[in-house]
Amino acid sequence: MRSYPNAWVKNSIMYRRGVGGGSSGVTHELTEAKQGALHYTIGPYSKPTLYIKPGDRVVVETVDAFEGRLKSERDLPSKLLRVPFLNPQCGPIMVEGAEKGDVLAVHIEHMAPRGDQPRGTCCMIQEFGALTGTYYTATLNPPLPETVRKIKIDDKHVYWSERVTLPYKPHIGTLSCSPEIDSINSLTPDNHGGNMDLPDMGPGTITYLPVRSPGGRLFIGDAHACQGDGEICGTAVEYATTTTMTVDLIKGWTIEWPRLEADDFIMAIGSTRPLEDAARIAYRELIRWMVKDYGYDQWDAYMMLSQCGKVRLGNFVDPKYTVGAAVSKKYL
Amino acid sequence: MRSYPNAWVKNSIMYRRGVGGGSSGVTHELTEAKQGALHYTIGPYSKPTLYIKPGDRVVVETVDAFEGRLKSERDLPSKLLRVPFLNPQCGPIMVEGAEKGDVLAVHIEHMAPRGDQPRGTCCMIQEFGALTGTYYTATLNPPLPETVRKIKIDDKHVYWSERVTLPYKPHIGTLSCSPEIDSINSLTPDNHGGNMDLPDMGPGTITYLPVRSPGGRLFIGDAHACQGDGEICGTAVEYATTTTMTVDLIKGWTIEWPRLEADDFIMAIGSTRPLEDAARIAYRELIRWMVKDYGYDQWDAYMMLSQCGKVRLGNFVDPKYTVGAAVSKKYL
Amino acid sequence: MRSYPNAWVKNSIMYRRGVGGGSSGVTHELTEAKQGALHYTIGPYSKPTLYIKPGDRVVVETVDAFEGRLKSERDLPSKLLRVPFLNPQCGPIMVEGAEKGDVLAVHIEHMAPRGDQPRGTCCMIQEFGALTGTYYTATLNPPLPETVRKIKIDDKHVYWSERVTLPYKPHIGTLSCSPEIDSINSLTPDNHGGNMDLPDMGPGTITYLPVRSPGGRLFIGDAHACQGDGEICGTAVEYATTTTMTVDLIKGWTIEWPRLEADDFIMAIGSTRPLEDAARIAYRELIRWMVKDYGYDQWDAYMMLSQCGKVRLGNFVDPKYTVGAAVSKKYL
Amino acid sequence: MRSYPNAWVKNSIMYRRGVGGGSSGVTHELTEAKQGALHYTIGPYSKPTLYIKPGDRVVVETVDAFEGRLKSERDLPSKLLRVPFLNPQCGPIMVEGAEKGDVLAVHIEHMAPRGDQPRGTCCMIQEFGALTGTYYTATLNPPLPETVRKIKIDDKHVYWSERVTLPYKPHIGTLSCSPEIDSINSLTPDNHGGNMDLPDMGPGTITYLPVRSPGGRLFIGDAHACQGDGEICGTAVEYATTTTMTVDLIKGWTIEWPRLEADDFIMAIGSTRPLEDAARIAYRELIRWMVKDYGYDQWDAYMMLSQCGKVRLGNFVDPKYTVGAAVSKKYL
Repeated sequence: MRSYPNAWVKNSIMYRRGVGGGSSGVTHELTEAKQGALHYTIGPYSKPTLYIKPGDRVVVETVDAFEGRLKSERDLPSKLLRVPFLNPQCGPIMVEGAEKGDVLAVHIEHMAPRGDQPRGTCCMIQEFGALTGTYYTATLNPPLPETVRKIKIDDKHVYWSERVTLPYKPHIGTLSCSPEIDSINSLTPDNHGGNMDLPDMGPGTITYLPVRSPGGRLFIGDAHACQGDGEICGTAVEYATTTTMTVDLIKGWTIEWPRLEADDFIMAIGSTRPLEDAARIAYRELIRWMVKDYGYDQWDAYMMLSQCGKVRLGNFVDPKYTVGAAVSKKYL
Repeated sequence: MRSYPNAWVKNSIMYRRGVGGGSSGVTHELTEAKQGALHYTIGPYSKPTLYIKPGDRVVVETVDAFEGRLKSERDLPSKLLRVPFLNPQCGPIMVEGAEKGDVLAVHIEHMAPRGDQPRGTCCMIQEFGALTGTYYTATLNPPLPETVRKIKIDDKHVYWSERVTLPYKPHIGTLSCSPEIDSINSLTPDNHGGNMDLPDMGPGTITYLPVRSPGGRLFIGDAHACQGDGEICGTAVEYATTTTMTVDLIKGWTIEWPRLEADDFIMAIGSTRPLEDAARIAYRELIRWMVKDYGYDQWDAYMMLSQCGKVRLGNFVDPKYTVGAAVSKKYL
Repeated sequence: MRSYPNAWVKNSIMYRRGVGGGSSGVTHELTEAKQGALHYTIGPYSKPTLYIKPGDRVVVETVDAFEGRLKSERDLPSKLLRVPFLNPQCGPIMVEGAEKGDVLAVHIEHMAPRGDQPRGTCCMIQEFGALTGTYYTATLNPPLPETVRKIKIDDKHVYWSERVTLPYKPHIGTLSCSPEIDSINSLTPDNHGGNMDLPDMGPGTITYLPVRSPGGRLFIGDAHACQGDGEICGTAVEYATTTTMTVDLIKGWTIEWPRLEADDFIMAIGSTRPLEDAARIAYRELIRWMVKDYGYDQWDAYMMLSQCGKVRLGNFVDPKYTVGAAVSKKYL
Repeated sequence: MRSYPNAWVKNSIMYRRGVGGGSSGVTHELTEAKQGALHYTIGPYSKPTLYIKPGDRVVVETVDAFEGRLKSERDLPSKLLRVPFLNPQCGPIMVEGAEKGDVLAVHIEHMAPRGDQPRGTCCMIQEFGALTGTYYTATLNPPLPETVRKIKIDDKHVYWSERVTLPYKPHIGTLSCSPEIDSINSLTPDNHGGNMDLPDMGPGTITYLPVRSPGGRLFIGDAHACQGDGEICGTAVEYATTTTMTVDLIKGWTIEWPRLEADDFIMAIGSTRPLEDAARIAYRELIRWMVKDYGYDQWDAYMMLSQCGKVRLGNFVDPKYTVGAAVSKKYL
């Protein structure tokens, strides 16, 4: 747990404004057994699996996005996966005192790979991905070949192929509080969070999620051992983890879309189609954040981000696409 | 009820394939009182309000999309409307024998205006509409002015202004079965149907909806006394109705997106963003329909629709946009 | 020439405001021989082929979009067509007195099929069309099959197949004045007009084109014997014609995008991507037209078109997509 | 000139494959005086200003995107700027031996600020930018305020405001060979290059441009002292420079879209709307590059980039949007 830059967190918004002061010292375990049935929608109708207090730590056993069904490179996704029962989520975790208009702060501290080797799975699913006709970008072309890759992972590397070894850069693909009344399938990101597939959302950063129902109802799943910008083939190196996170509550911080804080930048996150609209949302939310919390004039922020804003493309394969817009903390 | 071309229905797919033969002779009433609480999501979690058999007729009292809150032209939508509690739906209506993989056929027979004059309401809501920055197409521009129009309606005309009287062309804006596990806010159309805002979906046509949960769970609401292509200011002439419809069940007709049949054309319907993708879905589904049920070769259908396909733009203001693609029955 | 509704034209904007009063009585012929080399870009750099006065009639021999290269159903587009030498244009025709800030009015009077049977050609070109990955919507899927259809045409019908005979509904696919400084390939529509592929642009309607360079520089080509909304396979029934048109000049009518007038409606035309933005342009221009020339209040026009606006989808296959937004003349 | 990482260039594709071996030792000057009239379109019709041999160095004096018209913060863009006479370009520079099917390699070596202080200009232009309705995303909202910022620049910093000093990160906003027959306004990027606004295109990297007409016809302009991802307010810190570049010729390397090489990555560049399609183009071209020149299997490249691909958002404000997709050289 030493490899991630968690030290800065003591200066974070979470520590400064969190009801739990960023840490309560209490740790909960949400094992596969304790979780029981996983969830395929993120909403207010499912039964909670854990009740915690602001600042508590949770160690959660996540399963991979295919619920472990793709065990070998000979498996066919079309045989073993069934829409909409994909991308299973742990939770919902209820946070004491969380109400509509608040924020849950989720500090991912550590993500350890879990399970037998090869632990990682990447695949091409028919009519899914950035460079293929899809369910929503409907074409008549023959599909791409179904392909499953099983990949060895340790806590330093992802052994992609004989030729290429990638660094282990874990993050959570899907993280969210519940919408107020919608129950949204776990494949779709939106203003609640959801399947954002944003590589920044890993150990050493804090995600801020809008609370829209009592307790917040935190869902988590879809861990990636690494992922490129855009997640173009539709999947990352999907794997099971033991993820350690601290969850705090910030009262009365009403945000419209998820936000993220790292040691050296803050980021606002938007998810919609087309992709430029996701980027518009992210940048407008970032400007609003700079205006409200950092005293910027709106037009100064707009023009300045035109000179120094940074964009992370999360995914452009999910039912909605995700973009993060960031600004360095040294300008705040 | 004589003004709508319902006679052709005896030759429809609904009559030929429906379990109830397109008509059972039984009529149910779903009054406001019987409905009780209205629904703002379309999903599998709400309590049914009516149980019917295939071929039964239902007379339903719909309320307008604003639940009647906009009573005068001095009212402000921002004061009286609250997201996500918009576009209230009647139902769900359970149809005996309906299971995943089937289709509900909904023949709208008649729509009568209901309530005091001026019955109709049209308004401009801030950050909503085709020609304004919106929640999803985020801009920093000042908003358009909030404006409410109250409009007199009778069963022949919509009295838009001193200058302009429009014909009464009623249709249902939101119609759907429930998704399998999602519970989707009633503002958003998708493959279940939902807020399609398609002017063809009125008296004299039949809508075919995919069943994805037991009983189908039919929701209906959002009546329009008339609507232009695209519903550009974000709202139609919204009004309360007494809507008469026959609901039948077609077993084993598995469709991916809603479809519509009129006396002289068939139409497939797609809803997503960007708009071209909605059109792609609609045309691909229409081709699949022509191939499966009318013996067309796929490429012949594709090339022929390039010569004679007709497109209806439903809306491009909702969270997803809706397009219908149609072909004349004389070519089938 | 009796089959088209040209009588209304005497009440048109062209007749009322045209320098030539809608008709001068003079007729010019622009034969294939007189035209000589055809043009593949629309711009200010090409040599004029004809000089006319406002109100003159021009009878022009257009060639098909493939310049006649696809002669049989065994031909392969990939062998015989070469980007960017596609969609050849006749002209430019110089109109006396036309200057930047004016409008050319083009009344298509008649379009007669020309050449040997089968005169019409429709084809599927690889990576081109609405339901396939394309040059701009890049995918890795295998392409659709190249297919050429040769179709018999007379002045009443298009003999599509043994099963289907379509009505002859001729129109011009590409019509434009020159941009001010750009020279744009003839496949791309934009604010100058160009490859709009709008089925309304045929005998009996008048197109209004913004003049941006001296003489206007009118280009014309790409005739279709019929076309469905969207032109989904990428091509219509392409054919050679003898097209008769009257070209008039309206001084000081400065418009930003092409417009169209029919006996019973006026239409504004937008071309861009994504498709919703083409529709936005078209509707905004229509509103501006109603405000400026018909005394409408902007918000009244916006809200009213939300009730009675009509949309024609021209194409969503070209490098930019084209939408026409129309309103009935009875509301003006 | 020591601050840029130019040393790696000796291992670049340009050095290995260039006709001039990446350097000829000959230097040309293209001063403002020698250039004379600037160009507002990029095409085959303009008169060359310089003839060079492969490997020659050119020192070019670029002017800012506003041609120096915005001299003070009291100036109004709407008064002083006139579409389409924006973003003036130097050139065209003719490279001996360049023919359709080749590539021009442009190694930007150095960019020095030029002119009086404050040299830099950033502004908000009405109906232009990412967070406003625009010419192509037409809305009825009131416009954003016109605003001009004049900014002091030296060769280390951009003095944005009293609060914020940004690093000097110069790059060329617009760089291209001519299209084959189109003459495209200098505001629009496409497969020829053009107004890409990609921050990577500065000192220390090499851009590869497809040659489509004899001599290549290289255009350059639109220097930025720094720019954020997306250039959201529509403009960067625009300024005049003395730019030093080496231009080489690679025979028989036929590429469809511009490419870029840095010390540690290669990048393919796509420009279109909507934004996801620009990203699709960029990634597909990158895969094609990896397959052709680095021996990758197509599906391996696709799936691997899903794990390690990097995306740079150039702009989403120009008539077409620009995305670069990159992969680290260590995986090649």
